[in-house]
Amino acid sequence: MNSFGRIFRVQIFGESHGEVVGVLIDGCPAGIPISSETFQEDLARRKGGMQKGTTPRSEEDIPLLKSGIFNATTTGAPLIILFENKNTRSSDYEKMIEIPRPGHADFVAHQKFGGHEDYRGGGHFSGRLTTSLVAAGVVAKKLLGSIEVTATLKEVAGEPDSATGIEKAISKQDSVGGIVECVVKGLPIGLGEPFFDSVESLIAHAIFSIPAVRGIEFGSGFAAARMFGSEHNDSLVSMDGTTATNHAGGVVGGLTNGNELLFRVAIKPTSSTPQEQKSLNTATGKQEAFTVKGRHDLCIALRVPVVVEAVTAMVLADLLLLEQKILRVNPSR
Amino acid sequence: MNSFGRIFRVQIFGESHGEVVGVLIDGCPAGIPISSETFQEDLARRKGGMQKGTTPRSEEDIPLLKSGIFNATTTGAPLIILFENKNTRSSDYEKMIEIPRPGHADFVAHQKFGGHEDYRGGGHFSGRLTTSLVAAGVVAKKLLGSIEVTATLKEVAGEPDSATGIEKAISKQDSVGGIVECVVKGLPIGLGEPFFDSVESLIAHAIFSIPAVRGIEFGSGFAAARMFGSEHNDSLVSMDGTTATNHAGGVVGGLTNGNELLFRVAIKPTSSTPQEQKSLNTATGKQEAFTVKGRHDLCIALRVPVVVEAVTAMVLADLLLLEQKILRVNPSR
Amino acid sequence: MNSFGRIFRVQIFGESHGEVVGVLIDGCPAGIPISSETFQEDLARRKGGMQKGTTPRSEEDIPLLKSGIFNATTTGAPLIILFENKNTRSSDYEKMIEIPRPGHADFVAHQKFGGHEDYRGGGHFSGRLTTSLVAAGVVAKKLLGSIEVTATLKEVAGEPDSATGIEKAISKQDSVGGIVECVVKGLPIGLGEPFFDSVESLIAHAIFSIPAVRGIEFGSGFAAARMFGSEHNDSLVSMDGTTATNHAGGVVGGLTNGNELLFRVAIKPTSSTPQEQKSLNTATGKQEAFTVKGRHDLCIALRVPVVVEAVTAMVLADLLLLEQKILRVNPSR
Amino acid sequence: MNSFGRIFRVQIFGESHGEVVGVLIDGCPAGIPISSETFQEDLARRKGGMQKGTTPRSEEDIPLLKSGIFNATTTGAPLIILFENKNTRSSDYEKMIEIPRPGHADFVAHQKFGGHEDYRGGGHFSGRLTTSLVAAGVVAKKLLGSIEVTATLKEVAGEPDSATGIEKAISKQDSVGGIVECVVKGLPIGLGEPFFDSVESLIAHAIFSIPAVRGIEFGSGFAAARMFGSEHNDSLVSMDGTTATNHAGGVVGGLTNGNELLFRVAIKPTSSTPQEQKSLNTATGKQEAFTVKGRHDLCIALRVPVVVEAVTAMVLADLLLLEQKILRVNPSR
Repeated sequence: MNSFGRIFRVQIFGESHGEVVGVLIDGCPAGIPISSETFQEDLARRKGGMQKGTTPRSEEDIPLLKSGIFNATTTGAPLIILFENKNTRSSDYEKMIEIPRPGHADFVAHQKFGGHEDYRGGGHFSGRLTTSLVAAGVVAKKLLGSIEVTATLKEVAGEPDSATGIEKAISKQDSVGGIVECVVKGLPIGLGEPFFDSVESLIAHAIFSIPAVRGIEFGSGFAAARMFGSEHNDSLVSMDGTTATNHAGGVVGGLTNGNELLFRVAIKPTSSTPQEQKSLNTATGKQEAFTVKGRHDLCIALRVPVVVEAVTAMVLADLLLLEQKILRVNPSR
Repeated sequence: MNSFGRIFRVQIFGESHGEVVGVLIDGCPAGIPISSETFQEDLARRKGGMQKGTTPRSEEDIPLLKSGIFNATTTGAPLIILFENKNTRSSDYEKMIEIPRPGHADFVAHQKFGGHEDYRGGGHFSGRLTTSLVAAGVVAKKLLGSIEVTATLKEVAGEPDSATGIEKAISKQDSVGGIVECVVKGLPIGLGEPFFDSVESLIAHAIFSIPAVRGIEFGSGFAAARMFGSEHNDSLVSMDGTTATNHAGGVVGGLTNGNELLFRVAIKPTSSTPQEQKSLNTATGKQEAFTVKGRHDLCIALRVPVVVEAVTAMVLADLLLLEQKILRVNPSR
Repeated sequence: MNSFGRIFRVQIFGESHGEVVGVLIDGCPAGIPISSETFQEDLARRKGGMQKGTTPRSEEDIPLLKSGIFNATTTGAPLIILFENKNTRSSDYEKMIEIPRPGHADFVAHQKFGGHEDYRGGGHFSGRLTTSLVAAGVVAKKLLGSIEVTATLKEVAGEPDSATGIEKAISKQDSVGGIVECVVKGLPIGLGEPFFDSVESLIAHAIFSIPAVRGIEFGSGFAAARMFGSEHNDSLVSMDGTTATNHAGGVVGGLTNGNELLFRVAIKPTSSTPQEQKSLNTATGKQEAFTVKGRHDLCIALRVPVVVEAVTAMVLADLLLLEQKILRVNPSR
Repeated sequence: MNSFGRIFRVQIFGESHGEVVGVLIDGCPAGIPISSETFQEDLARRKGGMQKGTTPRSEEDIPLLKSGIFNATTTGAPLIILFENKNTRSSDYEKMIEIPRPGHADFVAHQKFGGHEDYRGGGHFSGRLTTSLVAAGVVAKKLLGSIEVTATLKEVAGEPDSATGIEKAISKQDSVGGIVECVVKGLPIGLGEPFFDSVESLIAHAIFSIPAVRGIEFGSGFAAARMFGSEHNDSLVSMDGTTATNHAGGVVGGLTNGNELLFRVAIKPTSSTPQEQKSLNTATGKQEAFTVKGRHDLCIALRVPVVVEAVTAMVLADLLLLEQKILRVNPSR
């Protein structure tokens, strides 16, 4: 399914070179002020064409609020938000029908959907759909009150400094990856469930819906596998749940523990590298050299932090509603 | 919720020192041969008391098949499988009511459930519940046919050899963690969905329901963040989906791509270390020294591979049913 | 939630006097031919302004297929279908902010959503949303192959002849109700589940999502309560499931039994009657006389049959996918 | 699926002549006092062998509370409640393998599950499973506080007096049906959703999971189809939502409106009548005379009211949790 959440439920749709991409949000509390402007900052952070290493394709990304909003306030009915696709050049993508682009879903999508998929620009599999995720995140963040979700790019191409990392990509004329870290402050104790709906389970589920994610780790993460128990355990120091260290990343037994929620996400290098690659020509059945055309990011990781924030906010808004820490109707109108 | 899956739906329940732990499976196809013996091998792999570094608490772990099975075959109705808790010593755990054990859910569970939680031995949060997961996995594996799910322990306490890692733990008298790798062979192309129900999303969701998991990475994982695109991309070599390399770990665009599904899981050191630790005495509001009693594993990672296989099999059985690659009624009875 | 279905999942949205109403369909198999024309017949059946007793408000009802369709065929990605609201006159509805219309959701919506609801023309509660249901039904019907879903109006204002019933309404200048019967031919045996997802449960769930429905009965229905068992039981006559009678309405033990699925639905008289009524003036707290303005149907039941077909087709498409009687990818492209 | 509910989630399992029937409840708030005695009254109301017209099979129906309860209080973890089947005589049912009982699921279950179904006493399709529903209802009722759910038998065999109706059945030696009416007092305004999760949708969904139900109507129900709008509309008289009449049965626009929730349910005559019937001998392919053996109720409707209350309470508990009218943790411990 293309939906997520139990109360605050998000469903995304659309294709890269179709008419629109968009998002439907069901279960959003009534009384939340939302207008087109509310989305500007986060959409701008996601948008390409702003910084070195991002694609020159630049959509206007104006959110069209089609339902669920009245007098610039959520009504409690489903929200639908559309983004029109205007700046598309489908001819760039025709070749890929025969030669699937390495690292992309072209081949598997063709197999799964029996050849009926919209292949233009990756179709429904496109990173363009992260616009929908960001929009959902904007609404979710409005619900979080004083809780702050902040994702930052910690590493590009192995460099702690993103400018240096990007220079590496430009000089090599090859795409690169990165590491995004997300920190959430102000969460109450006890969100999540012991097993299948642990906070890590839900966050990881949402994070892996972002294209190009290859891994996630909470707190000390993979490093924990090499620590001793006495070293890794976080010692409780206060009745508000504060621990002396935060190796757990703010989650114990699947539940938030009152400390900062902390996780890191590995982003692979953009699949569409300027370098020549090999792929199978599905018409001839033979491998051949191949260079991806179209406008692409050298480092998609640059655009991911706001998407990480968005899906994290979605998960947390849902859990806060489940735990009744957010009201179904916003009283302060 | 404590349930997972859309068609093959698994729900676990029980407490460490209550009467039972168990699992309910809904949506299992009819006609699958299942008997108490079917579970023996995997339950034995999960069980403690067998190898150095695991707890001397040894439950018999006899699965009681209470419903959904008739003439040693699944009927299509919900299965319920119980495991009685016989070998419990609750008195070991009384202290933790006042002094929450570091790394455990004692404190957060108390906060979340308003003091109503069953605190004995971690109650519903106990690793004992992984017996339920393993049982669900045994049933799921029966559905997978020639698909093979194999998880192995790749590293203990930073050592590639688990015996060496355990010796480290024993000599330090401290608990240690490890890395589990899981490989799935024989999957068809096209399982999963592009975004929220990507294969990585679902696997990660299920994996993080296993206690002590701190991270997951697919294919080249976190290392991908430091690779160039031309290096990371897997080149398609055959119409069956085979790629020259498998940096993607068998998933592209959220969908299985016909190669081996491959992921690694980081397991933290057992929270119950023999070392003295500090925690808060919730009665006095002051930190005090604390040594965990009870029978515990020095390295819980030793017991995790079969649990990783189990939840992976659950996810795959569900996806195969959704994609109609497994029949709702097993024809070969 | 405003969504329904497990595989073929339908979500409706929009407001009577907002920009659009519409529907999102997730889980629709790939390879189904769909174009704007596909919807015409059923949308025309639902539309007002065509026959005596229906509202003179006439929307063009052109389905805008915004995603999930490529080359006039479903792709397997989510479908979004919009209908623009053009022919609205919101000023008619202003009075109802203070005086809730009897039989309408005005008062309860205001209470539930804390005054944030879009009150114009009933907002999200409007019968206009049945356009979305009909659109979903059109797609669902395309999946049903040779299975035929036919709903007909059996009674208007107590008259077996609808023209006579409408004349009664016109002469009394009062709104009237009716009875809709639905018959489904060609269903396989075994759709549905024994308890919570019985065919009756799912059909009834969907049917009661249609505004103005007051009751549903399967087979002999309420009359069964006065029959003897020997009279009511349907005797099996053939291995294809055919029974001598069909008092069960085609469902036994929650499952389709191979006979015609048969149920009847009671539709209340349109709440917006031309007659003067009383309601509470919420500003003064006193009852006062009240006449509903706006353009309304004297007998909404005239427009309900195609909506009954639509939600029935949705339920059946979902069950057929679950039972693997419909393929996830349509092979005949 | 055999589960129902979004937060308060109920799953039933078991077979008539297997080891147990039972129920799993997930999402039950912590801190609710529950013991074996809590169930006695409602289980006794459901039990046969108490009154004329009910089966002499009498199970002890002792609820075994296996998980989720500690110190006689719910913990917030999943509850599992088992009922052992002791008083079974499977030999009575062997004949039905070849000759499906009219009105029962024998034939369709065999088709659906490929012959793997537990056919003894109807297996998973048995009315015995309503014990599980009643148990879930007992827990749900504990959550409802001052809200009262009361179902009563209004008609047996067409007689307003149940004793007279039963006499009719006994004198005719044939099974009979009845009408159950359910009234809920004390509901807040605004439970439910406008369309797919309307209160009527959810109640009807749950009610049709009860075996033998043939119809449901809310408020004036089928009679509404013959009323004029001016007659049917309920006029609002007070800001607490009270209306002068209650033809709507307490639901408008899918939402509770502050008046009594009122609906009626049609129960068919027990399928197992003492009368000789005809059915198909599936071995010979010919119809033959057939008399059902085993111990059965002449009027199953006698036992249905408490089951109607149970599933109604389940739906309402879930809606009250969704609307945050019930706390996730009971503060009054």
